[in-house]
Amino acid sequence: MTAQQPTTAPRMPVAVVGLGPMGIVLAETCLRGGHPLTVWNRTAARADDLVARGARRAGSVAEAVAAAEVVIVCLKDYDAMYAAFGDTTRAAGSGRPGPLVVNLNSGTPQEAREAVEWAASRGFGYLDGAIMVPPPLVGSPDAVFLYSGPREHFDTYTQALETLGSPRYLGPDPGLAVLYNTALLEMMYATMNGWLHAAALVGSAGVAAADFAELAHGWFTPAVLSPASFRADAPDLDRAEYPGDLGTLHMNLNAIEHILRTSREVGVPDDQPRLMKEIAERAIAAGYGEQNYYAIFETFRT
Amino acid sequence: MTAQQPTTAPRMPVAVVGLGPMGIVLAETCLRGGHPLTVWNRTAARADDLVARGARRAGSVAEAVAAAEVVIVCLKDYDAMYAAFGDTTRAAGSGRPGPLVVNLNSGTPQEAREAVEWAASRGFGYLDGAIMVPPPLVGSPDAVFLYSGPREHFDTYTQALETLGSPRYLGPDPGLAVLYNTALLEMMYATMNGWLHAAALVGSAGVAAADFAELAHGWFTPAVLSPASFRADAPDLDRAEYPGDLGTLHMNLNAIEHILRTSREVGVPDDQPRLMKEIAERAIAAGYGEQNYYAIFETFRT
Repeated sequence: MTAQQPTTAPRMPVAVVGLGPMGIVLAETCLRGGHPLTVWNRTAARADDLVARGARRAGSVAEAVAAAEVVIVCLKDYDAMYAAFGDTTRAAGSGRPGPLVVNLNSGTPQEAREAVEWAASRGFGYLDGAIMVPPPLVGSPDAVFLYSGPREHFDTYTQALETLGSPRYLGPDPGLAVLYNTALLEMMYATMNGWLHAAALVGSAGVAAADFAELAHGWFTPAVLSPASFRADAPDLDRAEYPGDLGTLHMNLNAIEHILRTSREVGVPDDQPRLMKEIAERAIAAGYGEQNYYAIFETFRT
Repeated sequence: MTAQQPTTAPRMPVAVVGLGPMGIVLAETCLRGGHPLTVWNRTAARADDLVARGARRAGSVAEAVAAAEVVIVCLKDYDAMYAAFGDTTRAAGSGRPGPLVVNLNSGTPQEAREAVEWAASRGFGYLDGAIMVPPPLVGSPDAVFLYSGPREHFDTYTQALETLGSPRYLGPDPGLAVLYNTALLEMMYATMNGWLHAAALVGSAGVAAADFAELAHGWFTPAVLSPASFRADAPDLDRAEYPGDLGTLHMNLNAIEHILRTSREVGVPDDQPRLMKEIAERAIAAGYGEQNYYAIFETFRT
């Protein structure tokens, strides 16, 4: 051992509540990371493999909570969390400052804010979180986990959070993690729907999706839909500046009308381009016709 | 001059019909490329700068057609092309095999196929094309131009087509260029709408678009919406194979419902996530609930 090596801190005891496909991977990652691990699942047999590898099976959520400093909750939604916890509270006189409940299910920002009060009334610390990668990536440095809530909780329990992936703190508003999660997923579904509908359009002329993907994702997506350009353009949204000198919303509406007409002509569902047309027309009706396409943001923002 | 240097072929005479923002850039690019250039525009004064730099101004489309081997048409749509050409036909006894009409406006595949017959009845060759870059990129090697129609036209006139950018031949069906164009633009609008709606969602909590872009386009888009993964997944669409072992359409519907509820809660328009929900529900109703998200393609394809 050399002086450069850090002292290894004792690993925080962790509990995982909810052993669905993601919960199991979270639990395995904690075991691999050396954390004393307690697990609970409604169907207890889901924990058998984990127990065989060193986890302790809790007979109740209260038992799991009593054994851990960090309780990772991975259930379907907030109601499922409330049901699983029942009347569990912080063990009286446990002498520990926590536990911290880290809730990783999806929901709305308001649901996350209400959960803070629920947790406080039971003596728990609370962070809301969102997992931005599929199960196979959990535990890797690329696994971004988003967290929001009190900064001191994030700092105190960073060791356990870092076991799961790269924790990213968004701010004290506990609603931020699910809000970011929702926004990023919307981008994902919007992009996938556009790609699949586009593949159906060219498919109507007998073009294989694999051939189309070569052009669409080999050249068009990286070149035209470049992340760099979105990042460069974002300050225009914040300034509400949409100069139309390189192209106007009227010109975009013309292009969208061609998409709509083509969808109808070749017989693929037209509801996606129809909604695109409505969105562009709404922005034109609001007076943005001579500004650029990003001006539709003015009809989205609150 | 060494033996390795290619003989420079004489540059084909080109005409550009339609001098909107894109037409002017196409014409300038031809001039820079050394092509004898004739230009026509309804409002003749739009050609003044080009004439000052060596272009010839045609008094009619017929005059432009008579002067060129390649006639590049850059008007609003097919009807505008028909109106501009009027009763222009190939000059009798011109002794030239062309001209080739290269139509670069947008439209539907059927409109492109009809234009072939229109051109043939007047003695013109015809290629349909689409410009996949904004005006500033025209003339660069990154400027992808899509073409469809008879292969021999593409080969005979490659010299002029290469002046404009990187020509890409899609196949003999003349409708392919506008169909690809439509499909790629649909991807672009779908992706932009998703990004702008997502920015509005986080904006409801006071997050600046520039801050969100840092996460969304600095990490999420390149990592999760990677072009490489779309290309790798495309053969599954062609095989209609959508294994659900890493996530099912039912699970995606749950996530989409969170997006919809959040949009309503924070007060941004809900029509995009509402349509996403309808699309997922339609695919589940068609029996794809236990398959992965790409199975919605089965409800899109013809």
